[in-house]
Amino acid sequence: MRFGRERIARKEGDSAPVSLGEFELIDRFFRNRGARRADVALGVGDDAAVIDVPRGKRLVAATDTIVEGVHFPRAAPPRSIGHRALAVNLSDLAAMGARPAWATLALTLPAAEESWLREFANGLDELARAHEVALIGGDTTSGPLTVTVTLLGIAHSRGFLARSGAAPGDHIFVSGTVGDAAAGLAVLEARLKQGSAADREQLQRRFLFPEPRVELGERLLGIASAAIDVSDGLAADTGKLVRASNCGARIDAGALPLSAAIVACAGAQAARDWALGGGDDYELCFTVPAGRLAQLTGSVPVKRWPYTAIGLVTDGPGVVILDGAAILNVERAGFDHFVR
Amino acid sequence: MRFGRERIARKEGDSAPVSLGEFELIDRFFRNRGARRADVALGVGDDAAVIDVPRGKRLVAATDTIVEGVHFPRAAPPRSIGHRALAVNLSDLAAMGARPAWATLALTLPAAEESWLREFANGLDELARAHEVALIGGDTTSGPLTVTVTLLGIAHSRGFLARSGAAPGDHIFVSGTVGDAAAGLAVLEARLKQGSAADREQLQRRFLFPEPRVELGERLLGIASAAIDVSDGLAADTGKLVRASNCGARIDAGALPLSAAIVACAGAQAARDWALGGGDDYELCFTVPAGRLAQLTGSVPVKRWPYTAIGLVTDGPGVVILDGAAILNVERAGFDHFVR
Repeated sequence: MRFGRERIARKEGDSAPVSLGEFELIDRFFRNRGARRADVALGVGDDAAVIDVPRGKRLVAATDTIVEGVHFPRAAPPRSIGHRALAVNLSDLAAMGARPAWATLALTLPAAEESWLREFANGLDELARAHEVALIGGDTTSGPLTVTVTLLGIAHSRGFLARSGAAPGDHIFVSGTVGDAAAGLAVLEARLKQGSAADREQLQRRFLFPEPRVELGERLLGIASAAIDVSDGLAADTGKLVRASNCGARIDAGALPLSAAIVACAGAQAARDWALGGGDDYELCFTVPAGRLAQLTGSVPVKRWPYTAIGLVTDGPGVVILDGAAILNVERAGFDHFVR
Repeated sequence: MRFGRERIARKEGDSAPVSLGEFELIDRFFRNRGARRADVALGVGDDAAVIDVPRGKRLVAATDTIVEGVHFPRAAPPRSIGHRALAVNLSDLAAMGARPAWATLALTLPAAEESWLREFANGLDELARAHEVALIGGDTTSGPLTVTVTLLGIAHSRGFLARSGAAPGDHIFVSGTVGDAAAGLAVLEARLKQGSAADREQLQRRFLFPEPRVELGERLLGIASAAIDVSDGLAADTGKLVRASNCGARIDAGALPLSAAIVACAGAQAARDWALGGGDDYELCFTVPAGRLAQLTGSVPVKRWPYTAIGLVTDGPGVVILDGAAILNVERAGFDHFVR
């Protein structure tokens, strides 16, 4: 954890303005955050952190950045920003079937406002504790609001899930429901105003506080042939998975798992577009060879970890989406017409 | 390595504009960068990287962000930005006496310009190879230019250097020369125009291409009682070291190692101010108990790894700087009068 020379400027008209050097800011808001772990030999407060990796286990590392105005709107509550900065990385580790353990935080912010920082730190802290992740270090700098989390975790001794393991004939699944987060962002930005307040609230929550499927990822080890997390939209992410596997995919748009809330607020057609192109769901898209379907349904009860079969891996190339009679080749047509 | 939905906008009037999705951008500029390491099981291109940490060795992790307009001027060459993003983290690991091994890159940039990206990647790549660091993953996003590198390394089996080990009576040393980088930034920003072109070029190079003291840090294990890297200015960083050790410090301003170039360009007084308050030198400040001075000079020949005794650890509190007859208590007076 570095303590820069810069002083983060006070925010004018602040509820409780804080004039903080980087040292005080880190000490006050980011020390002892997340889970306490016995394997952290040296945490926040020195030039670097020191940790003990379990013997014989591989280390897994993911880095993701979220930028104000790009990945979340200016109106997003700070608690959500803290939550999402970690969640996007937890989701990457989930897609590897790995167990998260330690995180560093690089927070660039234009002004220090006490209530903002407290809420941001609490959002990060709460999710970190839920997944037994310790915050071991990081850096705060002044500049446009940008949050980068690097998440380290431990690979399962049985291995890890890569994107490249799918083969033609494998079944494609997605966890939970898709499209909700994109619809929720539309609610947040007042682009989607239909539906009940409760439904809109539910969609918005999917955007603000995504729940990465870490447990599901671990359970898919030895069953799934490949996995990816759905961060950029189901069609795009499925495309990446099958491209890494040198295959193609056929997705049945009619099979997409849609929440009752998104259908009620947006109608079936818009819901489907959001589900395919919307992004930010942080569900898992994974492939399972036909010979392991019984193992999947037996070892990973769909009642506890909901997932839906949405298509098949093909020889390819490209992702073909069947929507009733219409065929849309995503690879060629692109998905610019999708929402967002 | 995540591949975001966003497309980095083309830069208008570009020498060779590239319209790139994040996928293509990463594939083209950041795959197979840095050293090839046999311990990287899965590198750039999946949801996360997978690495083998040597058995029985502790992992060391540092994260540092550099922001355009805050940590480097808009005029900085992209090669320098790539170099510095890694160098600031290498310097953190040097201060731990740890050996760097793997890095992730989070690059937020407003526009994709081919020659800029190539130069940036080359700057990062060259320094990474020199220190046997593999680029294992990261994220590119669109937004204001911000670069966060997380550097992972391996702690020496003899342990690591913390900030907290100094005791009253220990001698304080600093490697190389200090103040050059701050003076070099002044040259870059045309605030410092005196001196010969060669001297100004040398100072500017210290800012643009700092050389982290990784080898020196490793050699100080078992000799130094504490260490910190000089990123925020010698006075401020010495203050952090002794505060972490519950001590104070007395620094003799007359003993500060100044380069001939900085004295020639700025004069002795400004050079001293820059040396104490300037920052960005990425030298190591370390403390050595009197009983280990012979070991220091014997095992770490000053001719090969230059360092200078600049003061003593005291009971404290605070850092006292003796400047001839004048005494400046840094802790109380602050260093706002210092340059930058």
